[in-house]
Amino acid sequence: MINKLIAKIQKTNAPIVVGLDPMMKFVPKHLKNAAFAEFGETLEGAAEAIWQYNKGIVDAICDLVPAVKPQIAMYEQFGIPGLMAFKKTVDYCKGKDLVVIGDVKRGDIGSTSEAYAVGHLGKVQVGSRSFYGFDEDFVTVNPYLGSDGVKPFMKICQEEKKGIFVLVKTSNPSSGEFQDRLIDGKPLYEHVGEKVALWGEECMPKEGGYSDVGAVVGATYPEQGKILRKVMPRTFILVPGYGAQGGKGTDLVHFFNEDGLGAIINSSRGIIAAYQQEQYAKYGEANYAEASRAAVIAMKEDIAAALAGR
Amino acid sequence: MINKLIAKIQKTNAPIVVGLDPMMKFVPKHLKNAAFAEFGETLEGAAEAIWQYNKGIVDAICDLVPAVKPQIAMYEQFGIPGLMAFKKTVDYCKGKDLVVIGDVKRGDIGSTSEAYAVGHLGKVQVGSRSFYGFDEDFVTVNPYLGSDGVKPFMKICQEEKKGIFVLVKTSNPSSGEFQDRLIDGKPLYEHVGEKVALWGEECMPKEGGYSDVGAVVGATYPEQGKILRKVMPRTFILVPGYGAQGGKGTDLVHFFNEDGLGAIINSSRGIIAAYQQEQYAKYGEANYAEASRAAVIAMKEDIAAALAGR
Repeated sequence: MINKLIAKIQKTNAPIVVGLDPMMKFVPKHLKNAAFAEFGETLEGAAEAIWQYNKGIVDAICDLVPAVKPQIAMYEQFGIPGLMAFKKTVDYCKGKDLVVIGDVKRGDIGSTSEAYAVGHLGKVQVGSRSFYGFDEDFVTVNPYLGSDGVKPFMKICQEEKKGIFVLVKTSNPSSGEFQDRLIDGKPLYEHVGEKVALWGEECMPKEGGYSDVGAVVGATYPEQGKILRKVMPRTFILVPGYGAQGGKGTDLVHFFNEDGLGAIINSSRGIIAAYQQEQYAKYGEANYAEASRAAVIAMKEDIAAALAGR
Repeated sequence: MINKLIAKIQKTNAPIVVGLDPMMKFVPKHLKNAAFAEFGETLEGAAEAIWQYNKGIVDAICDLVPAVKPQIAMYEQFGIPGLMAFKKTVDYCKGKDLVVIGDVKRGDIGSTSEAYAVGHLGKVQVGSRSFYGFDEDFVTVNPYLGSDGVKPFMKICQEEKKGIFVLVKTSNPSSGEFQDRLIDGKPLYEHVGEKVALWGEECMPKEGGYSDVGAVVGATYPEQGKILRKVMPRTFILVPGYGAQGGKGTDLVHFFNEDGLGAIINSSRGIIAAYQQEQYAKYGEANYAEASRAAVIAMKEDIAAALAGR
C-alpha cells in the first residue's frame, strides 16, 4: 500500500493528507439545518451533517491530494450513527481513489490487536464467508504494548497489501512526558523509532523503496524529526501538527529524504475549517468546500517552496 | 464511579470482572446456527450470535460479580453490526446493575481524546440536545501521549462521575520492550504509575478511599504489581492476565491493599469459554452459561483462598 501512496503523491505532486476530523462547530449551518430537518437533533442528524460536510470537502479536493485521514474519534463520539458516517466516508474516499489512513491509534495484546487489524484492514471470518469491517488502507497504531501489539497488524498488512503508521513522537505539547525520557542515553521515541525500522524490514522490498510500516512524528518537533529521519531511513513518516497545531512548511523539510519522499504532511482543521479563518473568510460559509480547496493549494505551495529552498 | 464498583465488590464479595471478549470460536453451535438462520452468514449474523452468547453468560453470572469488561476490539472486527452488539451488551449489563468497564484502550491528543471521552463516558452535544454514545462506566486509556491524552478523560469522569483505568504495565509477553526500560534507574511503567497516582489526586476524596483514575497492571507480572501497589496506594488496579494468560491466584495478593481492596481481577476466556475446558466439559456446549457460572465460582474461591492465605 505504501507504493500506491507514493505513486499518488508523485502524481498529485502533493505530499499531503487531509485530516477529515469533523467537529460540529466546523459544519456550516446550511448542512446542519438540512440534516436536522431530516433526522432531528439526534445522533443520526449529527452523523448526516458530518457526512454531507465531508462529502463536500472530498469532492472539492480529491484531485489535488493523494490521501485523507479520517480521525475515528470524531465519529465515535456520535456512537453508532457516527461510526456509520465514518464508514461511509472511508468508502466514498476510496471510490474517489484516495488512499484512506484511518487514524484509529489502536493497539492491544496479541489476539486483541489482531481483532483490530482484522476489523480495520482485513477481513473477518463469519462461518464460510468473510467480510471487510471498516476497510481502511492504513491505520495508525499505538506502540506502548510492544511487538505483540504491532505484529498482528503487520500480518494483516502483508495478507491484504495494506499499511500502518506507528506512533513514535506525537505532535501534542505533553508528548515528551514519556516519549522524551532518556533510556541508555537516548529518548524513548528513538527506541520506538528503532523498533519501527526493525518491524518495517519485514514489510518492505529487499532493495530500495519504503516499508508498509510507517511512523507518526509530529511537525511540532522538527529537531526530533531530523533525528528520526536518520533512525528510520526507509520508513514513511506521517506528520501531523501542520497549521492549526503550529507546524510550518520550513519545519517540515527534515522529515523528507533526499529523494523528496519519505513524509506525508497532515492538516485537518487548517483545511476542513478553512472558511472560518480570516484568510479564507471571503468564500463564506456556503462555499466552505471551495475555501478548503484554496487552503490545500496554499499548503501545497508552502511545502513545495520549503522543499525547493532546502 | 469507583465507589460504586467498591460497593459492588463488597456486596458480591468478589473482586472479579468478567471479560466479555467473544470470539466466534467460543460461541456455541446452537447460537451460531440460530443467528445464521435469521441473518445469514453475515456481519449481522455474527453480531447476533455474539450478542446472544453474551446475554446467556451475563444472565448466568450477574448475581456473582460486580462488573464486566467488554473488549471492544472483539466487536469492532465485525464492523458496524459488531459495534451495535457491543452497545447492546453495555446497555444490557447496565440494566443488570453491573459496572461496565469498556476495554477500549483509547488515547490521543487533547481534542481527540476529548471526543473519545465524550463518546464512551459522556454526552455529545447535537444542536440543543445531548446524547450518550456508548455510555460505559469506565474505560481503559493508553498513556503514551502523556497528560494531554489522559486529562480530557478525567474531565468527563468528573462531570459524569465515571472512571478510567490507565495502562501501566500490560499483561502481554512483550510489554517489557518499552515499559520495562530504565529511566533514571526506574522502569518506564513506574514513571507511568507515578503519573497515574498524580492524575488520580484530582479525582479522589480528600481523605481515604480510591481515585476514579485507576491503573491496568497485568497478573502475569506479580513482582511489578507489588512495586506499583506501593507507588499508587490509592489507585484501584484492574488486573488482566488471570487464567488463560497464566496468572494464578497466589500471584494476585500483591495487587491488593491491606484493606482487602485496591484491585479487581479480570478473566475473559477462562470464564466465557469455560465449557471448552476439560474441567467444565461435563456441562456441554448447550449449557455453556452454566459452565461460565461454575468457573466464576471457582475463580472467586481461588482468589479468596489466596487472600486469606497471605
